[in-house]
Amino acid sequence: MTPQTLTVDLGTRSYPIVIGTGLLDSAFDLSPAMPGNTCLVVSNETVAPLYLEKLRKCLPGIKQSSVLLPDGESHKTLLTAESILDELVESRAARDATVVALGGGVVGDIAGFAAACYMRGIAFIQVPTTLLAQVDSSVGGKTGVNHPGGKNLIGAFHQPQIVLIDTDTLSTLPDRELSAGLAEVIKYGAIVDPDFFTWIETNIHALLNRDPEALIYAIRRSCEIKARIVQEDERESGRRALLNFGHTFGHAIENSLGYGEWLHGEAVAAGMSMAARLSGIDEADQDRLKALLDAAGLPSSPPPVGSAQLRAVMDMDKKVKAGKLRFVLLRSLGDAFITEKYDELALQEILGMADE
Amino acid sequence: MTPQTLTVDLGTRSYPIVIGTGLLDSAFDLSPAMPGNTCLVVSNETVAPLYLEKLRKCLPGIKQSSVLLPDGESHKTLLTAESILDELVESRAARDATVVALGGGVVGDIAGFAAACYMRGIAFIQVPTTLLAQVDSSVGGKTGVNHPGGKNLIGAFHQPQIVLIDTDTLSTLPDRELSAGLAEVIKYGAIVDPDFFTWIETNIHALLNRDPEALIYAIRRSCEIKARIVQEDERESGRRALLNFGHTFGHAIENSLGYGEWLHGEAVAAGMSMAARLSGIDEADQDRLKALLDAAGLPSSPPPVGSAQLRAVMDMDKKVKAGKLRFVLLRSLGDAFITEKYDELALQEILGMADE
Repeated sequence: MTPQTLTVDLGTRSYPIVIGTGLLDSAFDLSPAMPGNTCLVVSNETVAPLYLEKLRKCLPGIKQSSVLLPDGESHKTLLTAESILDELVESRAARDATVVALGGGVVGDIAGFAAACYMRGIAFIQVPTTLLAQVDSSVGGKTGVNHPGGKNLIGAFHQPQIVLIDTDTLSTLPDRELSAGLAEVIKYGAIVDPDFFTWIETNIHALLNRDPEALIYAIRRSCEIKARIVQEDERESGRRALLNFGHTFGHAIENSLGYGEWLHGEAVAAGMSMAARLSGIDEADQDRLKALLDAAGLPSSPPPVGSAQLRAVMDMDKKVKAGKLRFVLLRSLGDAFITEKYDELALQEILGMADE
Repeated sequence: MTPQTLTVDLGTRSYPIVIGTGLLDSAFDLSPAMPGNTCLVVSNETVAPLYLEKLRKCLPGIKQSSVLLPDGESHKTLLTAESILDELVESRAARDATVVALGGGVVGDIAGFAAACYMRGIAFIQVPTTLLAQVDSSVGGKTGVNHPGGKNLIGAFHQPQIVLIDTDTLSTLPDRELSAGLAEVIKYGAIVDPDFFTWIETNIHALLNRDPEALIYAIRRSCEIKARIVQEDERESGRRALLNFGHTFGHAIENSLGYGEWLHGEAVAAGMSMAARLSGIDEADQDRLKALLDAAGLPSSPPPVGSAQLRAVMDMDKKVKAGKLRFVLLRSLGDAFITEKYDELALQEILGMADE
């Protein structure tokens, strides 16, 4: 199959997303996207043994070094980003060097942040190997690390030169992580594309069975939607916040359970179901969303952490967001909007689901 | 005297530079430049006792906290930037909070970098209190910290909301630092403005005597020139490199002596004299530059660190800059250009000045 290419149109910071099967096996040439002839590949202990050698062949004529991060969100810290910066300094990486991120969202976020900070910004390439990273974190230029006081509090907007998505890398992805990635795919349908939502309903089993054509279509459509929204609002001053559908509740769930207990996509899944209910859309549509989440192997209600706990996290978020609790709600499936107005009684009822 | 305002025109990132006397004493209102009503003032142990209370009065209706950094370039580290980020997180600073830098270039660079990284970029205000910061580092959006492996290797481009330059703050500046700041003022004349160069020659004693009108004119003209160059090339892909006149040699001097032995402006002064000689301009013009540097209390030749040492640093720089040693040279006083071509024999002779 010929790889498919779509472009994120951000003026001088535009870049292609290349999606296909066998891209690593056939040594897709990444070197034309690099301003110079040196690169630092950043990966982790889990992904590198599987794909690093293949990636090396995608970098013909490029002087390569690599750094392997420990695996897991708990290492998404300034200290880890600093270890990449140290490596760049020690290897005397020049202004025309490129950082290549090979891995999931954590690797991409840290490596991208290091690339943004080294010499005030050097080139950066994303090779995402999880579904979540392929449909979400690798596109849009958000990079960063966590602070003990909160997730993603330290970061930069830094767009990549190219995103290379080889769906073959999903063959080694655990089922649970595949489902977590599908949560974000479902999100794109729910917020702006009712036809895509219907397509996912029809093809959910093909997706779970990792049918390459289904995966490529889902990833491509997800990236198209994300790219369109990012193009309109690169720095999230407005419409980009639509991408946070399910995330206000999801974040409260993750924070209440302790990060890592539920995967991000799982918390977002439950959060989307809660947000749909808060939206007051038809029960039939709420049920459709729930049924799709269930079929995807995702939770559609919060864990029993208690409504008071969820509310406490949301109040804390509210303070950080300059006093305003904003929700992304639905007019209908496939039509979301951002609002600070919501039904407080309904919210209490929905949070009460976590008391059971 | 009414303050003078000029604008750095960078589209949506445009901002005013306000220059005058008595701006802090008359409580110039900075609050309209802030997106929200909270700020963190970053200063250091030397500057805060002199000006922090006055600055507080420039922030009416703004909830203020402050953090004081230890004084000196040796503290311009990621660790110090992290202490500002910690303070922002601990105070639960919102996306609409503002970081205000009160101090010299080190404070501005670190505080600006922290503002760039917190939540991927919050608002930032510069209140520079040294001549060097007023004419150079506070304008143009370069922020960052040093790495043990090199100066300013970690950083970001992050433009301020406003730069407030109160020339009264120069009354407490040591003579040596005033002269070091004048090196950059002289640089602006030398690279693009022969009339300004002549004006500085005529007014050097007024400047050294801290005559307010002379200082305001020199600062205003310097900021105008820097703003114009930055507008043309915000991220230094081309013409902005003109601002590095004298800096290739200057950097080699600073690095060879050990940072802090000579002030940055002193090293740049000697570097400009060396670059003028490498340019092969009229001896009379070379002498004019030297005479002005002498009159400003600045060195016009390198310290005796040895030509081999200077060359070693320059070769290292060359590697970092992707294999090319670039110089900013003069066609005449007030007319500089960037080139990779230079007279190797002349260079050896000039570096030989450091053997004496």
